[in-house]
Amino acid sequence: MSEKRKKDIQRIKELESINLATDDIRELVVQTKIKVEKDNELLARKNNEELREHKIKSVDIVGAIGAGKTALIEKIVEILSEKYRILVICGDITTRVDADRIQAHNAESIQINTGRECALNAYHIHKIIENKDLDDYDLLFIENVGNLICPSEFTLGTDTRITVVSTTEGEWVIEKHPMLFKMSQVAVINKIDLAERLGTNIPKMLKDAKDINPDIKIITTSAKTGKNVNKLIEILEL
Amino acid sequence: MSEKRKKDIQRIKELESINLATDDIRELVVQTKIKVEKDNELLARKNNEELREHKIKSVDIVGAIGAGKTALIEKIVEILSEKYRILVICGDITTRVDADRIQAHNAESIQINTGRECALNAYHIHKIIENKDLDDYDLLFIENVGNLICPSEFTLGTDTRITVVSTTEGEWVIEKHPMLFKMSQVAVINKIDLAERLGTNIPKMLKDAKDINPDIKIITTSAKTGKNVNKLIEILEL
Repeated sequence: MSEKRKKDIQRIKELESINLATDDIRELVVQTKIKVEKDNELLARKNNEELREHKIKSVDIVGAIGAGKTALIEKIVEILSEKYRILVICGDITTRVDADRIQAHNAESIQINTGRECALNAYHIHKIIENKDLDDYDLLFIENVGNLICPSEFTLGTDTRITVVSTTEGEWVIEKHPMLFKMSQVAVINKIDLAERLGTNIPKMLKDAKDINPDIKIITTSAKTGKNVNKLIEILEL
Repeated sequence: MSEKRKKDIQRIKELESINLATDDIRELVVQTKIKVEKDNELLARKNNEELREHKIKSVDIVGAIGAGKTALIEKIVEILSEKYRILVICGDITTRVDADRIQAHNAESIQINTGRECALNAYHIHKIIENKDLDDYDLLFIENVGNLICPSEFTLGTDTRITVVSTTEGEWVIEKHPMLFKMSQVAVINKIDLAERLGTNIPKMLKDAKDINPDIKIITTSAKTGKNVNKLIEILEL
């Protein structure tokens, strides 16, 4: 990550801390957050080391509810399940709907229910890695809880992070949520099949993503029709 | 709120705390969260008292990015701006796009940029209330940051909370996010104009909302066409 991007992220974190709570407990809140993030960062690094030791490629997918994260993973797994032994971890507040959908496509899937937490953290992933024989897998996908904000606080230890938005979220969605785009290697604009009907300004979205993170790779897809899913797999070098 | 619902919420909070962090700092994280929530609850109550003293009716709207919160407020304000003097507070990570959209419809609007925070809290609202002459308004709308999870941690001190989901988020969206529906008085299923094309199972969504919170009032709308916006205003008794 470039120095400029690191500084941007730092500035956003400082801005945030001003309004976290009333004067009485602000310092406690800020210090706790710093500890949690540091703790998470260490564990994420450990996760990544373990996955690499076992030659497992890893990708995590973040995005709002309804962006099409599960549908994209379904399509990807359908294509890659002959080539790789795949494990998919799905995060959700409750239910195991997503894991069941993916299981139907020849990949093992594990559901994590977070209760009320708004994102997966490295600790969730660590506990699963510890209890699995990693020699049984070549590829790990993690689908985060549907949320375009909180996952920016926690890296998980994957090689690549994909942020997915959809045309139904409107053309402001990327400009409004810079953090995840700063932290991701790949941006997906999904539901491109609905763009015309909705009148979504796709060029603006592409431009915003590049403005926020010049290194990010961007692709438009339709998980429904399958459009560009193969290209996404190419970008991921899978 | 019924005893059963209070117990449900307590159980979810306990479940969540197990996975918040590693053993070393878990207790600190849990205790900090408890303090933050208590602090917020007190301030929310104070906000509500102040608003009521000035005879201001207040509504806050939560929902994911793209659910149509701003579009709904635009339509409501268009109808009510002759009857009431309206103040709208819009929360977003960054930009003042939403506030500008609403300002165009004869309501005063204030944008709060949260930096990286995933929801507005009572403290944000308190600071605005303190700096405004509340005799100038009859009605307050608060549009929360686009997020279907985090706003459940913070009440703001309004009379009524509306949770908005849209048909593009899929029929599982309510079942997957029970907390906000437990805490809201009104549920809106928006973008009903797209339901047929998307094949979204609306009866399931209606049933899920009632299962989660039997007291909740539910309405389907299209902010785009204006369908049922008048009925929503009736439900809100405005």
